[in-house]
Amino acid sequence: MLADIDYIEGIGLLAAALTTYSFLPQVYKTWKTKDVSAFSITTFSLFFIGIICWLIYGIYKQSLSMILANTITMISSFMILVLIYKYRKP
Amino acid sequence: MLADIDYIEGIGLLAAALTTYSFLPQVYKTWKTKDVSAFSITTFSLFFIGIICWLIYGIYKQSLSMILANTITMISSFMILVLIYKYRKP
Repeated sequence: MLADIDYIEGIGLLAAALTTYSFLPQVYKTWKTKDVSAFSITTFSLFFIGIICWLIYGIYKQSLSMILANTITMISSFMILVLIYKYRKP
Repeated sequence: MLADIDYIEGIGLLAAALTTYSFLPQVYKTWKTKDVSAFSITTFSLFFIGIICWLIYGIYKQSLSMILANTITMISSFMILVLIYKYRKP
């Protein structure tokens, strides 16, 4: 029973690690290339607001993994959003 | 007390709706423009694998909102990934 719980929580932690880390290569690539023409501003704006909601939800739920994962994703998605607004052509 | 729970779950549902819906404008834009040069393949590959892990976690946790949100995000991120592989220049 304990092994089952560990296994399930392991998948949850792996999920959090993967979706949190995944945005860092995009931040690096966009910062280096300044190429933002392909991005949907709507997508990254709504995603950023959504992550803030997940963070608030995680705080209310007192879930440390949700708070950690969504804080990092909030920062990296905010950085992508800033780069999009900075380098987009009017 | 019930009002508090409703309020918190409302934020969770809003978070799920926003992060799930957010990818659709990107799928549409990429499908129309075929412009994928700015995307990090690493980011979208890791994100896709991470969403599959969140889906498995949601199934184990018997959370309908996690299952619904992550199934839709899995499909939309898979579509973006297919478009990236289809239109990227070697």
